[in-house]
Amino acid sequence: MRRAARPEAGGERPVTHRQGAGGSAPAVRRDRMPGPIGLVRRLVFGRPVPTAAGLAHRLPIYLALPVFASDALSSVAYATEEILFVLAAAWALGNAGPATGLLMPVTAAIVVLILIVVNSYRNAVHHYPTSGGSYTVAKHNLGVYPGLTAAAALAIDYVMTVAVSVSAGIAAVTSAYPVLYHYRVELALVGLGLMALVNLRGVKESGWTFALPAYGFIVAIGLVILSSVYHYLCGTIVPVPPAAGAITPIAAVSVLIVLRAFSNGCSAMTGVEAVSNGISAFAPPEARNASRTLAILAGLLVFLFAGVGFSAHVYGVLPSHTETVVSQLARANFGHGFLYSIVAYSTLAILLVAANTSFAGFPRLFSIVSADGYAPRIFTQLGDKLVFNRGIYTLTAVSAVLIVAFHASVNAMIPLYAVGVFLCFTLSQAGMARKLSVDRQRGWQASAAFSAIGAVVTGIVTAVIIQSKFIQGAWVVVVLIPVLVFVGRGIKAHYDWFSSRMRVDPREFSPLRDPAEPLTVITLLSDLNRGALQGLNCAMDIAGERPHTEVRALHVELVPEATERLRERWRRYVEPFVGKHVRLEVVQSPYRWLIPPVLDYVDRMMRERPGTRLVMVIAEFETGNPITHLLHNASARRLYAALRNKPQVMIVTSRFFIRDVGTSQPSQPGSGS
Amino acid sequence: MRRAARPEAGGERPVTHRQGAGGSAPAVRRDRMPGPIGLVRRLVFGRPVPTAAGLAHRLPIYLALPVFASDALSSVAYATEEILFVLAAAWALGNAGPATGLLMPVTAAIVVLILIVVNSYRNAVHHYPTSGGSYTVAKHNLGVYPGLTAAAALAIDYVMTVAVSVSAGIAAVTSAYPVLYHYRVELALVGLGLMALVNLRGVKESGWTFALPAYGFIVAIGLVILSSVYHYLCGTIVPVPPAAGAITPIAAVSVLIVLRAFSNGCSAMTGVEAVSNGISAFAPPEARNASRTLAILAGLLVFLFAGVGFSAHVYGVLPSHTETVVSQLARANFGHGFLYSIVAYSTLAILLVAANTSFAGFPRLFSIVSADGYAPRIFTQLGDKLVFNRGIYTLTAVSAVLIVAFHASVNAMIPLYAVGVFLCFTLSQAGMARKLSVDRQRGWQASAAFSAIGAVVTGIVTAVIIQSKFIQGAWVVVVLIPVLVFVGRGIKAHYDWFSSRMRVDPREFSPLRDPAEPLTVITLLSDLNRGALQGLNCAMDIAGERPHTEVRALHVELVPEATERLRERWRRYVEPFVGKHVRLEVVQSPYRWLIPPVLDYVDRMMRERPGTRLVMVIAEFETGNPITHLLHNASARRLYAALRNKPQVMIVTSRFFIRDVGTSQPSQPGSGS
Repeated sequence: MRRAARPEAGGERPVTHRQGAGGSAPAVRRDRMPGPIGLVRRLVFGRPVPTAAGLAHRLPIYLALPVFASDALSSVAYATEEILFVLAAAWALGNAGPATGLLMPVTAAIVVLILIVVNSYRNAVHHYPTSGGSYTVAKHNLGVYPGLTAAAALAIDYVMTVAVSVSAGIAAVTSAYPVLYHYRVELALVGLGLMALVNLRGVKESGWTFALPAYGFIVAIGLVILSSVYHYLCGTIVPVPPAAGAITPIAAVSVLIVLRAFSNGCSAMTGVEAVSNGISAFAPPEARNASRTLAILAGLLVFLFAGVGFSAHVYGVLPSHTETVVSQLARANFGHGFLYSIVAYSTLAILLVAANTSFAGFPRLFSIVSADGYAPRIFTQLGDKLVFNRGIYTLTAVSAVLIVAFHASVNAMIPLYAVGVFLCFTLSQAGMARKLSVDRQRGWQASAAFSAIGAVVTGIVTAVIIQSKFIQGAWVVVVLIPVLVFVGRGIKAHYDWFSSRMRVDPREFSPLRDPAEPLTVITLLSDLNRGALQGLNCAMDIAGERPHTEVRALHVELVPEATERLRERWRRYVEPFVGKHVRLEVVQSPYRWLIPPVLDYVDRMMRERPGTRLVMVIAEFETGNPITHLLHNASARRLYAALRNKPQVMIVTSRFFIRDVGTSQPSQPGSGS
Repeated sequence: MRRAARPEAGGERPVTHRQGAGGSAPAVRRDRMPGPIGLVRRLVFGRPVPTAAGLAHRLPIYLALPVFASDALSSVAYATEEILFVLAAAWALGNAGPATGLLMPVTAAIVVLILIVVNSYRNAVHHYPTSGGSYTVAKHNLGVYPGLTAAAALAIDYVMTVAVSVSAGIAAVTSAYPVLYHYRVELALVGLGLMALVNLRGVKESGWTFALPAYGFIVAIGLVILSSVYHYLCGTIVPVPPAAGAITPIAAVSVLIVLRAFSNGCSAMTGVEAVSNGISAFAPPEARNASRTLAILAGLLVFLFAGVGFSAHVYGVLPSHTETVVSQLARANFGHGFLYSIVAYSTLAILLVAANTSFAGFPRLFSIVSADGYAPRIFTQLGDKLVFNRGIYTLTAVSAVLIVAFHASVNAMIPLYAVGVFLCFTLSQAGMARKLSVDRQRGWQASAAFSAIGAVVTGIVTAVIIQSKFIQGAWVVVVLIPVLVFVGRGIKAHYDWFSSRMRVDPREFSPLRDPAEPLTVITLLSDLNRGALQGLNCAMDIAGERPHTEVRALHVELVPEATERLRERWRRYVEPFVGKHVRLEVVQSPYRWLIPPVLDYVDRMMRERPGTRLVMVIAEFETGNPITHLLHNASARRLYAALRNKPQVMIVTSRFFIRDVGTSQPSQPGSGS
């Protein structure tokens, strides 16, 4: 049947693929990709989410909180301890025991800093309601390089969070079952894979999956704090005896030591930047919900961090290498019973799911950066589950490399951690301070001053962290950030160049080329087998019967006898059935080269016939088997690669599917290839 | 200019590429490939050799002998020692000292075997004058599997010869300069590369390069022998004192020990099969020259091997782990002077260049096997220096892997060596015995009997070698040979299947398809940029103005606003300038997939318009830089891969060369991609 006229197909009516028979509303029936791969995808990732249903997959506050707060809240599990480790190693003034009496002042200072930073981020979310992350704030207010620096720092920190968090979780498991220690890297990779999988299934699914550990942790630590306060008020505190391996002081306390204790304790803040990078995941009104989430997060964080600090203070807890501060507090309050287990397991759980915050933040960060052109554009595309799946793949891959490279050792990775996040706090605060002082809205002075103070303090913290961990690994981050910034600039420069070249002047549209130009269609003919015949057919199809158009079957002569035989068969079997415009041409190849004579022929054609369009038909064989496929098509691949560099040539690939044809009578003369 | 009529281009006159202006004899001026790669090729490999000049590049006997005899002659350097090592470890009957008195009888037996085997190969060359190797003989007379077994055994042996020979040469160098020992693998790879390079430059060049070491070795060892004979005749022999580390006997001599001494000594024969595999390298008359070379080789081999055996016998040389037998003989005859150095260095040189025999033999063997279809066809193609360069590449690559895997240690590789060559002696002799007894030409009985005896004896030697070296590594060869045979059969089966499918029934030629069938040309249009416009132009070029042919610019809607904008620009800028047959079509993609909607559209087109030919134009961008290239074309690559599986679709690749266009005014509306 010749082409049927399609009376309904006028104009540019959108056509939904697999359109329903005649319905006006496009009935989308196909929601999985075909074949076994499509089936596996469906089973693993679930149903795809239509773009139109996107809003229903946004996160309400009660789901956004566990997703974006896990990282920040999990730091409560170790921040107080970090302060105490530094303080306990120093004598208080007058050598009257360790300097741990400074715990509460240091904690109070950090709480103030947390409030300053969170307030600044709330301002940022308010002013940049679509993407209020540190990258955007720094880029808009400080310039491209600070913006990219913030993005690079954040990206490194997200990756480190995943690697550290998964490794820490597996370390807890292998502490319980030492026989598994040998397989810790494999286990960490499996855990990482599962986490990636849950996130690839969609934002909401990951929200539900990780809500329980987060809320469980809040409740468990809340109980410890309330119990401590109760005992304090009742005067029934029994100080905790020092655990085995407690620290003994070695130096007098100094400003530097207090500063280092403060910097260490600032690890409580890591993670609060995540909300501002994830605004697009919130249900509308996005900015308001994100801002509220930040406020709730700040409240919880201050309550938990200050509460743990207070409890540790009143119980006189000393840090130990064998038992955490939180564990000591839980033991002091609840003994070794059920409630203690709840605290222990929820602490482990929140450390594990802290990685989830990165899975929410990293892909969104990359999508924003790549939308600006500083990262490959493919990161801007949403997957069929409405998540930026390429960002998730990238995060998973890089984290997996880190886990393998560091043998899933938390200690080895820690020095690379936290540099990035404080650098980006600094840039974000500085950016907001500038923004507020330029905009000068009502009451800007206080906000700007707070942001400026935040910038200075977090800047000092950054410097202290870099200084104290430089040799152990922080230098890697210090080197890597400029490299990433440089790469980002390079990508942007390329895309800019690309866009400027690709942009079309509307005046250019009129000279859409004259389609009636003659074609010269060339196909290689090594022998008259079916594959070559299909190539010839393909060439004649393209040539059609338009005027001045020629078809050339080009034979490169390697063995004169074969050429003679081909000529003879061409004369007998092909010539009578094709028009005058189809001809066999033979080029000699004295050095047995295949590609250069073809390229020479093409060049000559272009020289001799300016204005003609050249089409090269490359006939390949599909054996239907990737191994046997390697036994063929070597010349086709080389020819394709060589012709790609000739702008004037259109390359047509015609595949001959060997399995689709029957075997002809073996008595007939003929040949393979 | 529209296509110029070419009055002279009638019929099928062969066109030499870069044909001279009007000469009737095609003036081939271009003899190197274009660009910097072509220049490097020229400098490294030299001028290409025209096919017509092939005969001039064949080897006369005086060059063929060093090429093909190096391997066999080099074994003289160690064969006598191998015998002595076994004999010296056994007490002679009556415990009257070591059993080394059996050296001469064993040597004599091996000489007889050499004569039998060489005679058999001369018969083979006579009967199979184009390729008289063991593979051909075994395949024709014993069947496909014995033939493939011989080929696999030979191939393994060629590779082992290269790896062992190069490693031995480097071991000699690092003995002299121990500081280089740490770099022995790198040095061996460099040596291997140089050897490959010389062979890639052409047969004759390698012949000349390696002639000196071979003839030098013959002369040097000949001098040792003649001097020994002279001293013997004059009665001036002074027995050599045992070198340090001489062997002490531990067991009484037995038949098994004599057999093992015999088998070890048979290593003198390895390499004589090379001539029969290399007939095509000889100047005509090929078979006669090869046969003569074999005779000369046999004479030299017998003279040198028997002479060294005799000299060792009369000097009472005992084997030692610190000094070779040849070195002891040279020292006994010449002291430590100039002549001693000549012997030492020429021995080292011949061991090194023994690898050259493999470079001559392996590619020819592969070309014969692949011409029969048992190996990938590409091995049949002669390179532009008239050598089978792909075989040389393969041999070099596999040898390099072995050198790296075995850390260039000769001792570790030796057990894998010599199994293959004796297995293929056995098969070749057996094949010739059968051939002679079937043909029954005049005087066949003696020849057949000799071949049969040769087959039995070399068969026993094979068994002894496998038995004594099985655990140390010979098992690898025993396992590998059947695997290679199996792979070869599989390749052949595939090519047979392929040929049967590709063969054309002459009656099929008549229904060369009707080229007037309508086309439907589809191109993807994400945006109206220059690349997409070029794709559209390309589609219109292919469509031409033939009847019933349509062009579809297909847009997959991911963002409705972008689609609206595209529609609007299409209506304003494109529609007025194209015919009715060019239309924009939009397909929705609710799940943000790009490829499945396109495939659905293609399927629907094919269903709705049976008989139409579908052409998909894929527009790619060439940035002219392999790194930035990665930032584009991701969708194009995926679409290409997906469409390859649809036999009915012709795929056209249109590359847009970004560097070739200027920048348009930035003030114009437009966009990148």
